[in-house]
Amino acid sequence: MSDTKPLVIFTPSGKRGHFPVGTPILQAARSLGVDLDSVCGGRGICSKCQITPAYGEFPKHGVTVSNGALSDWNAVEERYDRIRGLPKGRRLGCQAQVQGDVVIDVPPESQVHKQVVRKAASARAITMDPATKLYYVEVEQPDMHSPSGDLERLADALDKQWNIKDVKADLHILQMMQPALRKGNWTVTVAVHKSHTAEPPRIMHMWPGFYDGAIYGLAVDLGSTTIAAHLCDLSDGVVKASAGVMNPQIRFGEDLMSRVSYVMMNPGGDVEMTNAVRTALNGLAKDIAAEAGIAPDLIMEVVFVCNPVMHHLLLGIDPVELGQAPFALTTANALTLAARDLDLDQLNQAARVYVLPCIAGHVGADAAAVALSEEPNKSKDLVLIVDVGTNAEILLGNTNKVLACSSPTGPAFEGAQISSGQRAAPGAIERVEIDADTKDPRFRVIGSDLWSDEPGFDAVIKDTGVTGICGSGIIEVVAEMRMAGIMDRGGLIGSAADVGTSRCVPEGRTNAYVLHDGSASGGPLITVTQGDIRAIQLAKSALYAGAKLLMDKLEVKNVDRVVLAGAFGAHISPKHAMVLGMIPDCALNKVISAGNAAGTGARIALCNVASRIEIERLVREIHKVETAVEPKFQDHFVAASYIPHDSDPFVELAKVVTLPAPRFNAGSNGAKPRRRRRG
Amino acid sequence: MSDTKPLVIFTPSGKRGHFPVGTPILQAARSLGVDLDSVCGGRGICSKCQITPAYGEFPKHGVTVSNGALSDWNAVEERYDRIRGLPKGRRLGCQAQVQGDVVIDVPPESQVHKQVVRKAASARAITMDPATKLYYVEVEQPDMHSPSGDLERLADALDKQWNIKDVKADLHILQMMQPALRKGNWTVTVAVHKSHTAEPPRIMHMWPGFYDGAIYGLAVDLGSTTIAAHLCDLSDGVVKASAGVMNPQIRFGEDLMSRVSYVMMNPGGDVEMTNAVRTALNGLAKDIAAEAGIAPDLIMEVVFVCNPVMHHLLLGIDPVELGQAPFALTTANALTLAARDLDLDQLNQAARVYVLPCIAGHVGADAAAVALSEEPNKSKDLVLIVDVGTNAEILLGNTNKVLACSSPTGPAFEGAQISSGQRAAPGAIERVEIDADTKDPRFRVIGSDLWSDEPGFDAVIKDTGVTGICGSGIIEVVAEMRMAGIMDRGGLIGSAADVGTSRCVPEGRTNAYVLHDGSASGGPLITVTQGDIRAIQLAKSALYAGAKLLMDKLEVKNVDRVVLAGAFGAHISPKHAMVLGMIPDCALNKVISAGNAAGTGARIALCNVASRIEIERLVREIHKVETAVEPKFQDHFVAASYIPHDSDPFVELAKVVTLPAPRFNAGSNGAKPRRRRRG
Repeated sequence: MSDTKPLVIFTPSGKRGHFPVGTPILQAARSLGVDLDSVCGGRGICSKCQITPAYGEFPKHGVTVSNGALSDWNAVEERYDRIRGLPKGRRLGCQAQVQGDVVIDVPPESQVHKQVVRKAASARAITMDPATKLYYVEVEQPDMHSPSGDLERLADALDKQWNIKDVKADLHILQMMQPALRKGNWTVTVAVHKSHTAEPPRIMHMWPGFYDGAIYGLAVDLGSTTIAAHLCDLSDGVVKASAGVMNPQIRFGEDLMSRVSYVMMNPGGDVEMTNAVRTALNGLAKDIAAEAGIAPDLIMEVVFVCNPVMHHLLLGIDPVELGQAPFALTTANALTLAARDLDLDQLNQAARVYVLPCIAGHVGADAAAVALSEEPNKSKDLVLIVDVGTNAEILLGNTNKVLACSSPTGPAFEGAQISSGQRAAPGAIERVEIDADTKDPRFRVIGSDLWSDEPGFDAVIKDTGVTGICGSGIIEVVAEMRMAGIMDRGGLIGSAADVGTSRCVPEGRTNAYVLHDGSASGGPLITVTQGDIRAIQLAKSALYAGAKLLMDKLEVKNVDRVVLAGAFGAHISPKHAMVLGMIPDCALNKVISAGNAAGTGARIALCNVASRIEIERLVREIHKVETAVEPKFQDHFVAASYIPHDSDPFVELAKVVTLPAPRFNAGSNGAKPRRRRRG
Repeated sequence: MSDTKPLVIFTPSGKRGHFPVGTPILQAARSLGVDLDSVCGGRGICSKCQITPAYGEFPKHGVTVSNGALSDWNAVEERYDRIRGLPKGRRLGCQAQVQGDVVIDVPPESQVHKQVVRKAASARAITMDPATKLYYVEVEQPDMHSPSGDLERLADALDKQWNIKDVKADLHILQMMQPALRKGNWTVTVAVHKSHTAEPPRIMHMWPGFYDGAIYGLAVDLGSTTIAAHLCDLSDGVVKASAGVMNPQIRFGEDLMSRVSYVMMNPGGDVEMTNAVRTALNGLAKDIAAEAGIAPDLIMEVVFVCNPVMHHLLLGIDPVELGQAPFALTTANALTLAARDLDLDQLNQAARVYVLPCIAGHVGADAAAVALSEEPNKSKDLVLIVDVGTNAEILLGNTNKVLACSSPTGPAFEGAQISSGQRAAPGAIERVEIDADTKDPRFRVIGSDLWSDEPGFDAVIKDTGVTGICGSGIIEVVAEMRMAGIMDRGGLIGSAADVGTSRCVPEGRTNAYVLHDGSASGGPLITVTQGDIRAIQLAKSALYAGAKLLMDKLEVKNVDRVVLAGAFGAHISPKHAMVLGMIPDCALNKVISAGNAAGTGARIALCNVASRIEIERLVREIHKVETAVEPKFQDHFVAASYIPHDSDPFVELAKVVTLPAPRFNAGSNGAKPRRRRRG
């Protein structure tokens, strides 16, 4: 069919249609469903609808486009260019009108549903579609003869101009509404939160006239040990600032079960911990806003991912049921609530909180976030995802089925419970190699690119010194000790005589390996003790047994891919992890790190409201496995305590030590609060 | 069609059906839609489903019912009767089973939708159907192998057992949920609020096992001068306690416009007034709970009715726009919000507030409540409803159309701005008669049934004395003065010589009438001054002009009925009101008092959630008239200043004085804050 009206083709979407001469490009885009942004609704104010008209021949589209295909620059564009500057070649889509056939390119920054490209290798892009967006509206003035409230007329404007129905407003918005409307001469910009639930749209903030600034959201990964937050611009997903603090609950217990047992032994202990974490969150929000140089009331939303115990303590719910079978959560569903209900006061007064759903009593919203980020349910090959933290969350699956469990690794992988362990900080040993012949090590510390045996190393580390071993260093040194024959498959460190190196020194009734002696320069003596090996064995056995249990459930012997997640997962050397037996065997090039996948999941849920529906659905479909009551978990755990290096260079030193399985149930002789050892 | 299954007939509904032998009566009632209450869902716990089986012949229903038509008393009923006592002849509907044809009477107290009979003459009954009700549920225990949150299982139970879908819970409910479920051995009673809006059902409170107590709501009439509250049992609507306090905002200005002008002249004045009224409301809630002997956390809901300025100040919204054209409300719609958002802390933590809609900038939620109570929209004859207070709300209409306006009468009708005026309290003159011949008065005071000229009067009032004149007394004395020829139709009081009584005494350049001289016993000299007459003329003219304006709009010369509402309306003598010209002429027996109709409207909205839908719809349909900008209002006002008694006994004393019209706009020379004169 031919049409005498001009043809408008949009790239990159390829959408096309015929429009009468004089049709604004924004209007053409909207009627075709082309993703072209606008906050002011086509009034030439916001400049979000910038487009690039193309001229010349377009064989693919069968058109030749002349320079006169669009109306000339008008006064609005000239004014905008003069004051703000319009990039060369750009037009305002709401001002430029169709005059003839035309090809219009929508640059990425003019798309509403922009994609945020993530850095991590395995990452998918995030499509921007946040719950809270800005809308500019012109509101009818009050009419004494047909009285109605300002809110009703504003709601009417949002309906007519933006198709937002039945908007609600909190009291503090009502309190600012009349001055804002009058100051803006009956135009305002409103931030409106549109939930993915049945909750009605809600006005979060308002500004007189056109508001030219940004609004923000916080993605928070609330871990047992650390709290990490990213402040994201809700228009383009850009991370404006990041910050992290220690979780102050650590003083009540290092790991989750210690905190649960603290509550059991100290009535009101849950309230103390709730207050502690909320206070820390307020400090974090304040700092991150200050770092980004923004007013806290521009933060409209917070997304939380956390394990079940952190989840309950954040919400002010006694976590004691999570410490004993049947590990019942108060609520497993995702929560949307007011930030002020969590005493979060360094945000917009109306700020909304979204807490991702929990998978089970031991598998929390953090595991759900990893699932959202890594999408095992969309993987054709069988993927094992391990989120390594104080507890390890384990997901196994593909497009057919996804299983999840949690395994109580304890904090050894994070450098805690290790004699020379410390947090990842400058001066901490993070990479280790041990010469199989000499049994001498070389290492690298955080803050230096040089190995310890390279010239200039001492100068580089002059300020920090060598202070301890961080999580990834621990894994490497234990794996290297095994490969160099310093310990046997049972994990027993040999004596100087057995091994043939003076670095093996007696310590009590066992031996230790001297990794670094800084005593000459006043630094610490850094050794790996038999106790350290036992702690790592416990941790890695728990991790391995969890993965193995899921593989049993799926009746598979191998996995196709392994994804190591967690802030710490980013630094684990796949080779060493496999030597140590942390993860099931898999081709080394199929073991990748996804970085802080839980944090990424939080960012996805913040920037894309539809992803909340997706994860809430996925969580219901995930098959939950409770390691605490699976007898096979104990079997796998015991079997996994070996460190079975293939080319075992020396005979076993002693009978393999059978380690006690870790306890899930809190109790007086369970996990006791421990003082954190710091570097 | 015949049916071999027994016939069950319920009275008084007359509903009937055939049911298999063994069917519990409660189940039969439910399947027929008979209104039979149950909180425990038929478990023999709550006893709400008591019924009275009838025996004998029932010619109307064509059945003869024998004693064996129901199963024998069972152990549950015996136990209940032993412990709590079951009234003679009663059975528990959930226990008694059909054995043969039977007639079952459902006593009023066993109906869910009980009716509360109101005392006032014009009153309709309130059908109980509150937003918040109690439900007993049995909840599934957690299953480790199919993990789900306690809330999800509770929500599932409410869905399956009570058909309540997608229930939500505030954080503090989540915080109490796990202990309550376990203490109740997986049974709980929950109070659930089901809104008439799209808002999801919400758990307000929970108790382990079966909760045998009541839950309550507060109906609050928030007036400019007084705040009155009724505490109602939400199961039967019974008022358990009532209380009233002065509105502490009075210190910022006696009438509405004085308070608006206080805000204009004192930045932050709105915050002061908001805090003052909220503090008073907390005190009121605390007192009323104490008086009723109930825990404040059993108060689940509060309904507010108030004029627009009180509405904004309650919500913390600056009322300044209400003081000037176009009198724009921030929001006119009804509001449902959390009581804690209004800092109301002497209630259940989750308590919900419902604020009735406003009709217009001058016609508030109090007028809406009067409309809900008096239902002009359902009246076949044309009814004029006048709610007399510091502002008068006026409604005129019938089934065809309803009009509303507000008229600024000022506080004279409440005894303020009157030289000897006082609040209605013991010692205040409330009834007056003046002998047309002698010009001598007799009167009655609040707290005495005797007239002042009857023997024993002095003894009765010995404790209080005669202290002043209250609102209804003012109306009577002015009307009586006119009828006795003490003043002319222009309102001018004659001299002693003109009138022929020494009770007319000079006061400045005008005269005053001595109503009572208590100086001999140390009491006050109570006179009616020319200034008092002018204040009453202003007030009554405003009231009359408002009514007349609505009659003009409807193009009618007469009304069929007049309803006087307002706490003060209850005491106005229709005859005197008509002599004074407060209300248009109408047959005297067609003028009735509806008492505190606004307060009744608040109770209706509290006890019947469907009435909220009704008033929200009606308010949209009411035709609003803005007196402040209607030139005819001024004309009517001026014309209405006369007091045109038919049998005028003496010639006019002077030219009629033209009074200035009252001001709507607040301003420095408008209404100034005045000190309240008290008795």
